[in-house]
Amino acid sequence: MGEKVEVLGAWFSPFSRRVELGLKLKGVEYDYILKKKSHSILKFNPVYKKVPVFVHGGKPIADSILILQYIDETWKHNPILPHILITKLFHSFGPISWMTSKEIKEREEAIAEAGEALRALEEELKGKKFFGGETLGFVDIVANFIAYWSPAMEEALGVQILSNELQKLPRLSQWCHDFLQHPIVKHNLPPKTQLLSFFKAQFGPNNLASSK
Amino acid sequence: MGEKVEVLGAWFSPFSRRVELGLKLKGVEYDYILKKKSHSILKFNPVYKKVPVFVHGGKPIADSILILQYIDETWKHNPILPHILITKLFHSFGPISWMTSKEIKEREEAIAEAGEALRALEEELKGKKFFGGETLGFVDIVANFIAYWSPAMEEALGVQILSNELQKLPRLSQWCHDFLQHPIVKHNLPPKTQLLSFFKAQFGPNNLASSK
Repeated sequence: MGEKVEVLGAWFSPFSRRVELGLKLKGVEYDYILKKKSHSILKFNPVYKKVPVFVHGGKPIADSILILQYIDETWKHNPILPHILITKLFHSFGPISWMTSKEIKEREEAIAEAGEALRALEEELKGKKFFGGETLGFVDIVANFIAYWSPAMEEALGVQILSNELQKLPRLSQWCHDFLQHPIVKHNLPPKTQLLSFFKAQFGPNNLASSK
Repeated sequence: MGEKVEVLGAWFSPFSRRVELGLKLKGVEYDYILKKKSHSILKFNPVYKKVPVFVHGGKPIADSILILQYIDETWKHNPILPHILITKLFHSFGPISWMTSKEIKEREEAIAEAGEALRALEEELKGKKFFGGETLGFVDIVANFIAYWSPAMEEALGVQILSNELQKLPRLSQWCHDFLQHPIVKHNLPPKTQLLSFFKAQFGPNNLASSK
């Protein structure tokens, strides 16, 4: 994170400007290296010899889209790609559910981090019905587990993890409702009672976290 | 396109449901193969042996995010990932600019396709200031060339390609304006006169399409 950030760009290139814009939106400081003035950094992109090349702590990445994804994963504030946030949230949700009371500190940290992610999603929904706007999009599809799977898991295990935080977030709560009411989504959900039984059989009560 | 589409899924998996939701939003028919009933398709995912696995015309893909990207690239209507559309638009813009009058049919087809992409983006902006909603996001960053570079290219070469279509699209026109007025974007643009000179030197008049 504190390591040197370099962008090899060209002043006229919209692709270089994408990377710079991503860094500026995050408030990340970087050294800008003009392609004309120094080609040394191009050793990192021997195949294409193209700009932009992004180097963080000596690790190079080419391709503006991949660079933007890397930037969003590395500096998490002001998310530009919410689906990355959602994927991280999903991966933390499972472990939170079955952590035991011995791991109470890790559990609390994981819950705090999940809360942060949910609040960032709340911001993302400002002025919008879905993450995609008026119609369902990619981020809505990826966020499906927030609306349906995680509440079912909490119900099955008798725990409250995301739901505590969700109650405080009116836009995200409304999104859950609207997502589940969408005609195509509604007919593409596993039956609730079947899912509850499945979660109980798979994850509880042996793996159930003892703290509520 | 007309080839067989198969999804190996599990009824309880939010990841399988993502893929099915993507296909249903596109109206693409598929064969659903329950993991429990047949494991033959799992040969396509020997590393993870996980669902979902998506198979199109015998070509397998694992990972729900990659599958959704593939679906959006293959069936272009109802885009779920606008940045893929924008990347295609960018790649068609250059060739359109310097096609000669001999290639008039190809040029017209390419312009028609670009128009379709712009109209899809117009739809995407319904009820939103930016593609990301109230604040700039990934899609806005990727779309930077529509607001600044392509109008400059057209001005430099004395052609009208995207601008003809843009005039008919009020939301996208407003987006161009708002994007360029954003304080961080505004200070991250190459100087206009310098860019015009660069485009003239690089692409015109020898490569200039003779039809206006």
